[in-house]
Amino acid sequence: MKTAIKSMFLFMGFFSAICIISCNQSPKFSKENPFQAERVFTEPARPEGQTDVIELRCAPIDTVRMAIIGLGMRGSEAVRRFTYQEGVKIVALCDLVPDNLEKCQKMLKEKGWPQADGYTGTEDYKTICERTDIDLIYICTDWSMHTPMAVYAMEKGKHVATEVPAALTIDECWQLVNTSEKTRKHCMMLENCNYDLFEMATLNMSQQGLFGEIMHVEGAYIHDLRRLNFAKDSLGVNAYYDMWRLKQNETKDGNLYPTHGLGPICHVLNIHRGDRMTHLVSMSTSQVGMTAYAKEKFGEESEFAKRPYKKGDNNSSLVKTENGKTILIQHDVTSPRPYSRIHLISGTKGFAQKWPLQGIALEPNGHSYLSEHELDSLLTKYEHPIRTEIGEKAKEVGGHGGMDFIMDYRLIYCLRNGLPLDQDVYDAAEWSAIVELSGVSVANESMPVAVPDFTRGAYKKVNKVTYFTK
Amino acid sequence: MKTAIKSMFLFMGFFSAICIISCNQSPKFSKENPFQAERVFTEPARPEGQTDVIELRCAPIDTVRMAIIGLGMRGSEAVRRFTYQEGVKIVALCDLVPDNLEKCQKMLKEKGWPQADGYTGTEDYKTICERTDIDLIYICTDWSMHTPMAVYAMEKGKHVATEVPAALTIDECWQLVNTSEKTRKHCMMLENCNYDLFEMATLNMSQQGLFGEIMHVEGAYIHDLRRLNFAKDSLGVNAYYDMWRLKQNETKDGNLYPTHGLGPICHVLNIHRGDRMTHLVSMSTSQVGMTAYAKEKFGEESEFAKRPYKKGDNNSSLVKTENGKTILIQHDVTSPRPYSRIHLISGTKGFAQKWPLQGIALEPNGHSYLSEHELDSLLTKYEHPIRTEIGEKAKEVGGHGGMDFIMDYRLIYCLRNGLPLDQDVYDAAEWSAIVELSGVSVANESMPVAVPDFTRGAYKKVNKVTYFTK
Repeated sequence: MKTAIKSMFLFMGFFSAICIISCNQSPKFSKENPFQAERVFTEPARPEGQTDVIELRCAPIDTVRMAIIGLGMRGSEAVRRFTYQEGVKIVALCDLVPDNLEKCQKMLKEKGWPQADGYTGTEDYKTICERTDIDLIYICTDWSMHTPMAVYAMEKGKHVATEVPAALTIDECWQLVNTSEKTRKHCMMLENCNYDLFEMATLNMSQQGLFGEIMHVEGAYIHDLRRLNFAKDSLGVNAYYDMWRLKQNETKDGNLYPTHGLGPICHVLNIHRGDRMTHLVSMSTSQVGMTAYAKEKFGEESEFAKRPYKKGDNNSSLVKTENGKTILIQHDVTSPRPYSRIHLISGTKGFAQKWPLQGIALEPNGHSYLSEHELDSLLTKYEHPIRTEIGEKAKEVGGHGGMDFIMDYRLIYCLRNGLPLDQDVYDAAEWSAIVELSGVSVANESMPVAVPDFTRGAYKKVNKVTYFTK
Repeated sequence: MKTAIKSMFLFMGFFSAICIISCNQSPKFSKENPFQAERVFTEPARPEGQTDVIELRCAPIDTVRMAIIGLGMRGSEAVRRFTYQEGVKIVALCDLVPDNLEKCQKMLKEKGWPQADGYTGTEDYKTICERTDIDLIYICTDWSMHTPMAVYAMEKGKHVATEVPAALTIDECWQLVNTSEKTRKHCMMLENCNYDLFEMATLNMSQQGLFGEIMHVEGAYIHDLRRLNFAKDSLGVNAYYDMWRLKQNETKDGNLYPTHGLGPICHVLNIHRGDRMTHLVSMSTSQVGMTAYAKEKFGEESEFAKRPYKKGDNNSSLVKTENGKTILIQHDVTSPRPYSRIHLISGTKGFAQKWPLQGIALEPNGHSYLSEHELDSLLTKYEHPIRTEIGEKAKEVGGHGGMDFIMDYRLIYCLRNGLPLDQDVYDAAEWSAIVELSGVSVANESMPVAVPDFTRGAYKKVNKVTYFTK
């Protein structure tokens, strides 16, 4: 009888092997048994006693004492901009390249600001986070350090603002969420594109119902970065330190940089304010453009021409929301194309698109774009109140046409007034999560992959994105 | 022992049930076992003795004797256009609405053409196909009759041209392919958008290498058809007979009308001339726009307002090709948006887009669109030879800016000269197949679905789309 049982199990083993194979080769869905997006990533339970940080309010800070870590292209520009802000003190500056630090100190001096404490060591960010005279850590390093630094900073009681993307993996997204929830500290991703003129106006129009019920939106990061990515030997502010961005494109496929496109349209859709992303599918072309560029620039036989870059030239992802809306989000930093973030909003009563042509169409004339004059009038009428308040100064300061300045201004304003920030840690997690989620989908023939609910059920607590003012 | 075996099978049944459930709930892919797109539709083997019809050549026809079936919006316009063609005889006309027939006969008379034999019965298309004095059946009926009529016509030894989409299901696609292969008759889908000015020029540019290797393309049918779809009681030429198009939107989700967007970009990618579509994913918004429109037009309590329309407002599909290219294809006939077929081509050396802004960007200045003057010069230089040949007359005849006339001209020209048609039955099948493939994907949370190879391996016989001339 023991033999009988043994052979039964052997037989069953064989049977289960057949079953697994057949699951991967034959249609597994039917009317009765429809397919469901794969839950590749589990949602860890919220630790006991920890609560969500939806519209988190912290104690007002009279003067925000800040440290800026990473003084390359983005960080040095941040230092320049902050010299125009009020209620801020730049306490510390940190970069691995002493020359970058020096340039920023010089900039402070020229603007009549006191010198900041300077740091240049790889672990100095920890020392900075451990200081007790700092309120805000502003992170402008390469992508890989955003989450480790943000988590360490919050653990040491600091608010955090980090460049995009805030995280590169789902695990990092959960680290940010859990740390913010545990420490009750703000973690804002610096999504500057939410503060651009047309984006703010169309958010305002959306919230006032001008487009009716918004059904479909599109965003993108289409920006030919080949020259910057292949800027060899760059350690300065004019490209990516030690070619870190090329390395990201070498080792990952999917949408590596989703947040500029997603930020504005997710706020339009009130993501995690009543709705949430449920699943996505993602598709990449094969990689051709980077190798072609490397061959032309460095030669057919160069090491750069032979590297096995993973990132397909173009990536397109489709995201579905619980309320039945769809998001198209694209990424292409290799093809020769004019810059575009698309920024398209399609509703039951109207339509807006920013690239390649800024246009709006409204019922009952949805078939036609408004004339230039009508568009100007509409944009004036629906200018976002925050733009009206600070727009003139923003233009003067500059930085991507003023949107960077407004972003900093809002961050500091909300911290000083104890208000919820415009972008919370769930925004940071949701928009950054697309990096790994799209990668998994691409690696599996565009398989639908479930998007974790980083709010763990709290996404219905409020029903609208609010940019708070006193 | 019998009991032992019986219980073993019972146990196994239980085990296999668990396996099926777990296959649908837990991640089933890994590095070792990546996911593969579902082959929902089997590819029937080619019947013995039957061969492919790649670049099919038939005996030249001196004067093409044709019948036009369906004289609504598209068919009556076709009659008008054909009075400008040479080498054509309109032998028969058919429509269920006698008034439509009469109008067309009157049009023929006005242009000095002889009256055609008139038919108005539902089964009269069979009688027409059975006549021995006709070479070509030109089908302009509602979508549901395209394949039945085309199959019947080929069976009766006629060449076929059918309005888009040629088929609504994968089964219908195979019917067209098998019948064309068996009867050695042409089956061209009348994809007029392939003959538009910018589309033909960019095909020419693509074939001459101006865009480098083309990696990603986009197409769409974005056209607010609410007024036409809800034109109640229409039996004339000004809307859809008996509201047939609304019924399609009532009963199907997915991309119901993919071919206008797909046609030009599939020719740019040389689909089934060296490459082929392997799988797609598709996502729809929920349906809101049609109900909202019906409520406004017919009242909250109207029957139209209460119908359960299936078609989501916006559908987006992503298609992958064997050579690693991607296609984005969209459908929206409900949202108030300016008309667009997008028509975007992105390659390693250049970029083109038609909607919402006609523009081209080329290396080494890929970051910027050509100036208006440069674009005009380029479009003149790369005007497609067929456009150069017949463009002036096309403009004079009109019909979607002349593209309809060029389409007819090319159809008749190739038939008269015994040349392969510009669009073959595989084009018709591939472009139409998206209707059902996208529907299946949408119904299953955007599951990737394999695209059948309608050429059954013959897609590598030629490596380039050719519009043949003598």
